[in-house]
Amino acid sequence: MHKMQQSVHLLTHLRAIVGDAGIVGEGDLALHENGARYGAGKAHLVVRPATVEEVSEVVKTCIAHHVPLIAQGANTGLVGASTPDASGHQVVLSLTRLRQPMALDAGNRSVDAGAGLRLHELNDFLSEDGFWFPIDLSADPTIGGMVAANTGGTRLIRYGDVRHNVLALEIVLFNPPGQIVRLGRALRKDNTGPDLKHLFIGTADSFGIVVGATLQVHHKPVQTATALVIPVSSAAVNILLSEMERQFGDWLAAFEGMSGNALDAAIAHIPDLRNPFHPEILPEFAILVKLETCLPIGRTGKALQEMLDDFLEEQFGFSIMNAAVGKRAALWSLRHGLSEGAKALGPIIAFDVSVPRSSIMHFRELAIALVSRYYPWLRPVDFGHIADGGLHFNVVWPRDSGTPYDAGAVSPLRDAIYALAVEQFGGSFSAEHGVGPHNATFCQRYTNPLNKSWCGALKFLFDPEKLGGRVDFGPGIFST
Amino acid sequence: MHKMQQSVHLLTHLRAIVGDAGIVGEGDLALHENGARYGAGKAHLVVRPATVEEVSEVVKTCIAHHVPLIAQGANTGLVGASTPDASGHQVVLSLTRLRQPMALDAGNRSVDAGAGLRLHELNDFLSEDGFWFPIDLSADPTIGGMVAANTGGTRLIRYGDVRHNVLALEIVLFNPPGQIVRLGRALRKDNTGPDLKHLFIGTADSFGIVVGATLQVHHKPVQTATALVIPVSSAAVNILLSEMERQFGDWLAAFEGMSGNALDAAIAHIPDLRNPFHPEILPEFAILVKLETCLPIGRTGKALQEMLDDFLEEQFGFSIMNAAVGKRAALWSLRHGLSEGAKALGPIIAFDVSVPRSSIMHFRELAIALVSRYYPWLRPVDFGHIADGGLHFNVVWPRDSGTPYDAGAVSPLRDAIYALAVEQFGGSFSAEHGVGPHNATFCQRYTNPLNKSWCGALKFLFDPEKLGGRVDFGPGIFST
Repeated sequence: MHKMQQSVHLLTHLRAIVGDAGIVGEGDLALHENGARYGAGKAHLVVRPATVEEVSEVVKTCIAHHVPLIAQGANTGLVGASTPDASGHQVVLSLTRLRQPMALDAGNRSVDAGAGLRLHELNDFLSEDGFWFPIDLSADPTIGGMVAANTGGTRLIRYGDVRHNVLALEIVLFNPPGQIVRLGRALRKDNTGPDLKHLFIGTADSFGIVVGATLQVHHKPVQTATALVIPVSSAAVNILLSEMERQFGDWLAAFEGMSGNALDAAIAHIPDLRNPFHPEILPEFAILVKLETCLPIGRTGKALQEMLDDFLEEQFGFSIMNAAVGKRAALWSLRHGLSEGAKALGPIIAFDVSVPRSSIMHFRELAIALVSRYYPWLRPVDFGHIADGGLHFNVVWPRDSGTPYDAGAVSPLRDAIYALAVEQFGGSFSAEHGVGPHNATFCQRYTNPLNKSWCGALKFLFDPEKLGGRVDFGPGIFST
Repeated sequence: MHKMQQSVHLLTHLRAIVGDAGIVGEGDLALHENGARYGAGKAHLVVRPATVEEVSEVVKTCIAHHVPLIAQGANTGLVGASTPDASGHQVVLSLTRLRQPMALDAGNRSVDAGAGLRLHELNDFLSEDGFWFPIDLSADPTIGGMVAANTGGTRLIRYGDVRHNVLALEIVLFNPPGQIVRLGRALRKDNTGPDLKHLFIGTADSFGIVVGATLQVHHKPVQTATALVIPVSSAAVNILLSEMERQFGDWLAAFEGMSGNALDAAIAHIPDLRNPFHPEILPEFAILVKLETCLPIGRTGKALQEMLDDFLEEQFGFSIMNAAVGKRAALWSLRHGLSEGAKALGPIIAFDVSVPRSSIMHFRELAIALVSRYYPWLRPVDFGHIADGGLHFNVVWPRDSGTPYDAGAVSPLRDAIYALAVEQFGGSFSAEHGVGPHNATFCQRYTNPLNKSWCGALKFLFDPEKLGGRVDFGPGIFST
């Protein structure tokens, strides 16, 4: 059949499944074709099924037509895994209409949720009963997207990543095409063979399309305490972390590192963000800590914030700057403004790396030294989730540097920083953003051949025609 | 070659690898041939390599000889997965000599440990620095055995199972034979493709032999509080659990249910175990709760036990029986005596099931009704980990029942109880003991065909000759 005819034929089939409302018009394609940070592609067409059964039929139809497809949630991913490539051949399967009614089992602390719901919608629903799904991100992804990327965020040290909170998944398979399966049950203890749902978590829907999930939820804390701490040295950071964990245990909900450069950029560029430091000299590095507890204040007679303040005063010779109680929310505005502040300076060369957290400050020093030696005109504006070893080692090419941004020129920097993280520090080239076209080169480089051969076999098992997703994690890494 | 010659040949090869000390003599075979609860087999021979490299050579040699092999740790498993079958063909690969020096990274809260170390040895080592690996079992398995079975235990609700605390694994593969690989790193955030280590957790070394692990460890709590609670009704159990979690969050470290029958048997048969109830009438069901916290008592000014006592007094109309403070350890002796007490009554028909925890008391009622209707002479002596939905629904065939134990007669009971758990309650036929010959029938029955076909493909990928382990989780379930 002629290509054009084939395409018309596919559209007719898909329209029959999803109706007019399920086919995205020309004017709205850009939303689905361009990634949040990387990835400007071209879709063959964008289809938005409204039910799991429609997803199944769409998958069946695409595979029958040998047409590749990309699952997409809110398209907030940062590595381009949910956007089509430039070929114009890929069908984007947008899952945002999968809004099955949520079902909370309060006694089991679990919820069933459709893949298309946003994180904030899930949390709005849960909060009515005093629960939350405590993944804390600057984006507002869909449930399906969170499973596909295994998102982390600032509360990982307290609650784990998404993987730790998935009890079961509902999946539409590529093989057999369109078959709907459930993997796992609403159970915390279930040892009945390989726990195969893990193959579908953090793998960008490349083995099958996540259409629903049963998630473990948690009671919302009733007290929060925050402090901004300036460590006296790099070495003090891990000591503070260890001591806070030793005394507060799981009350430690966040331990965020912020470089002076990142703070500077945020304060300079975001209106209403005040400099909390006094005198108004920025520290080289600051830590924002958060404690959270379910324990009502009446149980102990002492407020959580008071306990945190006592701890910081008695334990450390740090110079500690607590903002006034009324301004504690402002401290988090500072943290949440770091990305925007950095972007205002110029194009960003972003590294989402992790290392064992005991060496994160050492890694950071060497990475900064590397930038200043070979790229003196670039400006590291890093921040990170120190408690889980994750560092957003972002480097800005300042607009006022005199030379315009040159992607080719920073390519050796990418090689060097990733090599430092992975080869020297036993770290990861992708801590929490997952794998997509943006970092596929490094996935290719740092995945060992045996692991790749296993992934290739898994891809063959779950998607023998290699039609689903943009990554197969196997020898070729890219599947389409 | 003649069979006898072949055997001599293999022994010569293995002895050359492991030395005389690595070949278990005739007199000590029984320890390795008989399971802790089920499984009386016959080994071809038992080999005890002392290093990872020796394991690799042993695996290579066995596969070259086409001889099946069973990995074994402390042989404390309860489903027979670590004991040889009756054929006398299987080589038992005992891993207890894999005692590589442990390495703690205190700042990363992680430890590297060899597969052959016992849980108590790991904890002795960790306690020097104030840490622990908080899996709480009545057995003392090896690290490798814990990974192979994905053990749960009483603290699961607080710390998760073993899977939740594995950062990385070292594995000796069957394919390529003897190849040594590491999966994962000492990282909490690492999203670089499929997290393949999960295929080697809870799968009884059927895909490869776990020889070492990097585990997440935790700070040891400094305060503990315990209470024995008698709920006014079945429905009150989940309400108590939810309310305790709502107020104490992760301080809730155990929430154990104990039936009156189980308590009765323990008190009757274990010397020095006193009845803590007053008047000395046993309740139908009692809950043992434990809170644990890292928070020093000075931080709040109120002891944890006081907080727990306050909570129980003010929140509930329960009849609550706290033992005196000095006897709180005795409450746990009661809990730990339940298994032994039940065994003293007669042969046990054991069910290690789980259901969504919101319905565990309902499941229990129906299961008891089923026993009393069809097997009136049997006696349920159940107890369980209520907070994670796990129930050891043990049923005793009393020695004084008049009829001797008849395995065939209880076969329909097994069918019925598992059907109730799995089919009616969406539960599991193996909550925390894993899959082995003992429950392979139910693995076969309750694993869906698609899942089996995937497992079969995985087995082919990792062990194409089907020489490793006793279960392949695939169409045939048994691999040898």
